[in-house]
Amino acid sequence: MTKTRLPVGQFVARDGIIDLGWGHPDPDLLPVDGIRRASARALDRYGPDALNYGYPAGPGPLIAWLCDRLGEVDARPPTPDGVVVTAGNSQGLDQVATLLTAPGEVVLVESPTYYLALRIFRDHPVELTPVAADHHGLRVDVLADTLSRLRRRGRRVSLLYTVPTFNNPMGVSLGAERRQRLVDLAAEEQITIVEDDVYRELSYDGRAPASLWSLAPPGVVVRLGSFAKSLAPGLRTGYITSDPATTTRIRDSGLLDSGGGISHFAALVVAEFAASGDYARNVERLRAAYRARRDALISALSDRLEGRAHWLPPAGGYFVWLTLPLGQDAAALLPLAESEGTSYVPGANFYTRPSDGHRSLRLAFSRYPEETLTEAVRRLAVAVGGVSD
Amino acid sequence: MTKTRLPVGQFVARDGIIDLGWGHPDPDLLPVDGIRRASARALDRYGPDALNYGYPAGPGPLIAWLCDRLGEVDARPPTPDGVVVTAGNSQGLDQVATLLTAPGEVVLVESPTYYLALRIFRDHPVELTPVAADHHGLRVDVLADTLSRLRRRGRRVSLLYTVPTFNNPMGVSLGAERRQRLVDLAAEEQITIVEDDVYRELSYDGRAPASLWSLAPPGVVVRLGSFAKSLAPGLRTGYITSDPATTTRIRDSGLLDSGGGISHFAALVVAEFAASGDYARNVERLRAAYRARRDALISALSDRLEGRAHWLPPAGGYFVWLTLPLGQDAAALLPLAESEGTSYVPGANFYTRPSDGHRSLRLAFSRYPEETLTEAVRRLAVAVGGVSD
Repeated sequence: MTKTRLPVGQFVARDGIIDLGWGHPDPDLLPVDGIRRASARALDRYGPDALNYGYPAGPGPLIAWLCDRLGEVDARPPTPDGVVVTAGNSQGLDQVATLLTAPGEVVLVESPTYYLALRIFRDHPVELTPVAADHHGLRVDVLADTLSRLRRRGRRVSLLYTVPTFNNPMGVSLGAERRQRLVDLAAEEQITIVEDDVYRELSYDGRAPASLWSLAPPGVVVRLGSFAKSLAPGLRTGYITSDPATTTRIRDSGLLDSGGGISHFAALVVAEFAASGDYARNVERLRAAYRARRDALISALSDRLEGRAHWLPPAGGYFVWLTLPLGQDAAALLPLAESEGTSYVPGANFYTRPSDGHRSLRLAFSRYPEETLTEAVRRLAVAVGGVSD
Repeated sequence: MTKTRLPVGQFVARDGIIDLGWGHPDPDLLPVDGIRRASARALDRYGPDALNYGYPAGPGPLIAWLCDRLGEVDARPPTPDGVVVTAGNSQGLDQVATLLTAPGEVVLVESPTYYLALRIFRDHPVELTPVAADHHGLRVDVLADTLSRLRRRGRRVSLLYTVPTFNNPMGVSLGAERRQRLVDLAAEEQITIVEDDVYRELSYDGRAPASLWSLAPPGVVVRLGSFAKSLAPGLRTGYITSDPATTTRIRDSGLLDSGGGISHFAALVVAEFAASGDYARNVERLRAAYRARRDALISALSDRLEGRAHWLPPAGGYFVWLTLPLGQDAAALLPLAESEGTSYVPGANFYTRPSDGHRSLRLAFSRYPEETLTEAVRRLAVAVGGVSD
């Protein structure tokens, strides 16, 4: 065997640092035993069908279960012909960028937004234009102005990318009234909303809001969902819900026509995990664990930074968005925070223009238990205090 | 649960038809028990690391093993930093098309070629230009002429897609001399060869030829490999070998940066299957089974169609390329063949210009045992005879 030691996972641990930069689940919350049982059951039930080329839209049993589940955790369920299984949200987004944009078109991105979505779009020949969000989510009035301005310049806008529910990086959700105005505007202007809905299951204070997909007429929203946050990212299984014309375009793409279902075996493992009831139990367990972590983080921020920094308490998801005292810069603060033993992602990373967001930063509370989060905030406060003194 | 019956697999069985159209493995040759054991072992060994975000280039243990294996079945091994794990060859090809082409560039495709690769490229804003292949593989002289012609017209050529080893659809392999001339020409003309090497392990008459990747200077060839044919397509795990600059570009893409390793759990299952020795034993078993099937198909063709049709006996892979008697058309023959109870893919499907290849057809011998293949040829010969009478 080759002797080089090569990594297995993506996370890079750094000695002495509680790293709130990573939007990863806590390894201790990943259901290893349940997946071991589900893998064996998938192979028992489907035999060679679990290992041969899969149905391009994804295995039927997962799609059927997913329609039922979304009927419970969203305002309405999709029909099976409106679902395509992906190899996770990133792959779904990459394929949407490939199939639903043309070179030179404008893709609008909520700003701030998930910074790695920006990187996925930048691998495609489109131009990114930001649309401002505030503490209540995307500003639909700014979107309307942006669309008018682009039309006057003769630009074609293909997509708007947004994370309206338990947003990454801000944690907030778009309000009900803005949701309806957003889908109405998109329908009127004939742009497609790409709704990144990956945090829906992680709701800590009651039901997640109705998805944009559930509120919109057919053909307006492509919703990306995933089992990365609600189950296990390493299974690389997610899904798209949209109108059947769009899901058929994706299912009939060269990629899925050639290779069949893009996460076939793993998707059948997810289907078995779900059918056993383990999925619903796992989500309950995650909600309880992450709710306690969110509460611990917010409580520590109140204890340590009240009156100096500002933050938004999230009702779900992984993240708290923190705004530093006036005059501080999150990128400049980072080395100080790391020398105190904690880390985060500076706010500027979430903007298409690096001049924006310099006072803000994103803290992920998903990866560490409460006492570790409390300690991380203590260290962060020392760094913040050290600068502002 | 939703009551609709949705498919699990991609294959569609048709009553009474022995369908040699599908390039799929025989379900009876898929190692269900071995994968059940490998799944359990992957979860035992890696625990939550098997389920969290994976290293973007793919899990280290699989990459290390793969370097060793390619050292055995190819002329030289890659180094670990020259490997990226994919979610199968189709996903690898899709990502290569996204990252290594620009809008309006020309992608050259061997002609005939794998028809679903054409569909993957057509989902990207590139122009496909065919380069003729004959019974000894790609014609390098025609490639040189094509490149000159395109240069004179001011066109930029980014990639050449070819299946030089146990070709799909022709079954033949590019000869040693043409291989060297091809990589020399590509290096000189600064085009990237995308070498689809998916059939390498399925060699029935001795070692597979040295890959183009192994013969070329760094940066000239991107080789796509897969576990679809040598193990199980439903695991959706493949790999790219190239120079570290190219594999780094792929590893650092938005897609892999965001989602981590794109087939993480399945790739660790493959790594466990491989480490146990099951992979090497499985490949031996597949070679013996498919060799017997190839022999049965060729023997039946000799018995039934000698002197009327022509065909190329392949030294590996899944396919036999058959040329019908003069005046016959494979697309026109298809309904007759199906009414006799067999099917195939007409040759025109493998060309960018549908006017080409009308006398030829592709027979896959991978999915059925010998006696079924013999019966399929009997039925085909009735159809062929019926037309030529």
